[in-house]
Amino acid sequence: MEKQKLTVGIDIGGTNTVFGFIKDDGENLYSKSIPTLPDEGVHKFIIRLTGEIKNTYDEHRREYVLTGIGIAAPSANYYLGTIDTPSNLKWGKVNFVTMMKEYFEVPVVITNDSNAAALGEYKFGLGKGLKNFIVITLGTGLGSGIIINGNLLYSGGGLAGEFGHTIVKPGGRQCNCGRTGCLETYVSASGICRTVFDLLATYNDRSELRRIPFNKITSEIVSDLAAKGDSIAIKAFHHTGEIFGKALANLAISFVPEAIILFGGLVDAGELLLAPTRHHFEENLLGIHKGKVRILKSSIKNGMAAVLGASILISKKINGRSLILEMDKNIEKHN
Amino acid sequence: MEKQKLTVGIDIGGTNTVFGFIKDDGENLYSKSIPTLPDEGVHKFIIRLTGEIKNTYDEHRREYVLTGIGIAAPSANYYLGTIDTPSNLKWGKVNFVTMMKEYFEVPVVITNDSNAAALGEYKFGLGKGLKNFIVITLGTGLGSGIIINGNLLYSGGGLAGEFGHTIVKPGGRQCNCGRTGCLETYVSASGICRTVFDLLATYNDRSELRRIPFNKITSEIVSDLAAKGDSIAIKAFHHTGEIFGKALANLAISFVPEAIILFGGLVDAGELLLAPTRHHFEENLLGIHKGKVRILKSSIKNGMAAVLGASILISKKINGRSLILEMDKNIEKHN
Repeated sequence: MEKQKLTVGIDIGGTNTVFGFIKDDGENLYSKSIPTLPDEGVHKFIIRLTGEIKNTYDEHRREYVLTGIGIAAPSANYYLGTIDTPSNLKWGKVNFVTMMKEYFEVPVVITNDSNAAALGEYKFGLGKGLKNFIVITLGTGLGSGIIINGNLLYSGGGLAGEFGHTIVKPGGRQCNCGRTGCLETYVSASGICRTVFDLLATYNDRSELRRIPFNKITSEIVSDLAAKGDSIAIKAFHHTGEIFGKALANLAISFVPEAIILFGGLVDAGELLLAPTRHHFEENLLGIHKGKVRILKSSIKNGMAAVLGASILISKKINGRSLILEMDKNIEKHN
Repeated sequence: MEKQKLTVGIDIGGTNTVFGFIKDDGENLYSKSIPTLPDEGVHKFIIRLTGEIKNTYDEHRREYVLTGIGIAAPSANYYLGTIDTPSNLKWGKVNFVTMMKEYFEVPVVITNDSNAAALGEYKFGLGKGLKNFIVITLGTGLGSGIIINGNLLYSGGGLAGEFGHTIVKPGGRQCNCGRTGCLETYVSASGICRTVFDLLATYNDRSELRRIPFNKITSEIVSDLAAKGDSIAIKAFHHTGEIFGKALANLAISFVPEAIILFGGLVDAGELLLAPTRHHFEENLLGIHKGKVRILKSSIKNGMAAVLGASILISKKINGRSLILEMDKNIEKHN
């Protein structure tokens, strides 16, 4: 019996890393989340990660053959194979592709996590059939992946856009990038926690949040308390949605996408975040664009968009063409 | 003797309209600037414009044949042929293409002025050989045209990006678009004049500008006085460059272009504007992008980039393909 082909998609986050064994049709055969533990260093991380992948692969070797590994990571460079000093991992600049190849003899490709998510949405999610859309990931930081005319937007250097580092409040919150007032210091899982502390200082509302120290708070706690009616938590979502909606409106003015697709931990809060975001987005759009750009919550199981996207990346690479050109061709056919 | 082909490129601005008779190789056989006089209404304007074009064409009929008319205008829709209520023209929504066709029996195509300028730069100017760049026109307003992966960026509706309406100062200056704080209320020929009046109110510096009423000031006057050392005029350029540089840095964070090409009346001020713009641009870029994005002054004769771009648009349309796909194909060939 001929073995079926499998690729591994990996999404490396600041907190957790998810890997999945993905079939050609996008079906997820098996996936697992392991803690990233960035303080441990990249070498120990790779030993743990490859060990987990090999163990799982050993269970499936009889029916499947591994054809490649696609990786999504913050600050990853598609052309160089590097992860370059992202703020959420303390690894400095590492050639992650070269390091992974010491453990596997299959092709390994890496790309920015938000770009991978955009590819996942484009092939398997709400981006199917669209030509111009933006994917925003709201995790520890705020990532962006942009598909224009059916192409993933890359700069010449292989780096993607960094919408999370748009400066929205000059002189505002300190950002890990070394500047101040970046969007992701307000709009992200960590940003909303900072907003909570700002609001606790400003208002006298009673709140469960007054019992929680800064180093224990999470966006899930804020979300749960908002759902229970905690007024500080609710204000935190309004505040976050206002900054987010206005920033998206400014982005849409230059890009004019068909949709903005959101995913990541903070988006699990659903309408708590989406309602104020949509309100301020529409209010700040130019008249000619009002009502034309949808803001959607990703339909792909949380954490899997980048895994799926990374897995596509590798399969296309094996076929001798990069995905970017492959898409280009498809779009031209459709025109 | 076979006649040579000519297209007419027209750039309609809030103050002046330039038309040129352009040969296939981009050579400008003849061009002329006429006042737009927007208060006069669109019908009178078209009668004057077509009269001028026909008079000139009559002089060249023996050697040349007119094959089409390409038009660049604010708020123009490529797909619909309309000019839709731009703030600098008081025409409402008009189907300019249909109206022009009453006077000429050749194909007529229209596009946004900044998009036309981007096409002109792409084929004949500093955009030659680049795949990702942004053209910014600083005239009465601030227009933007974006080339990504060799494609002109259009939304599905045929409208282009409106970077000039990025909100940079929430609650700031009133904009003709109905909102407040838009970039073009600060960075444009009219924006710098508003800044002068703001500075005259704030500072006590002696200045020639104190003799000039609001309805008489022009960016040329500010530019001339700055060159002569007038401290209010110099501050106005610093202030404009600071807002412009920061806004461009925020744009570059999402787009990562190879270059940003500037043209239009205000750019004639040269280093007065460019030096502070470049300074604040670099200062506000992410570390990974610093030193990689050039800010350039267009090398195309002032006012002609959009005329040339409009003329390309029509020649490609005649050949049975739209320029956008044509570029798409070229890029694919190059990869």
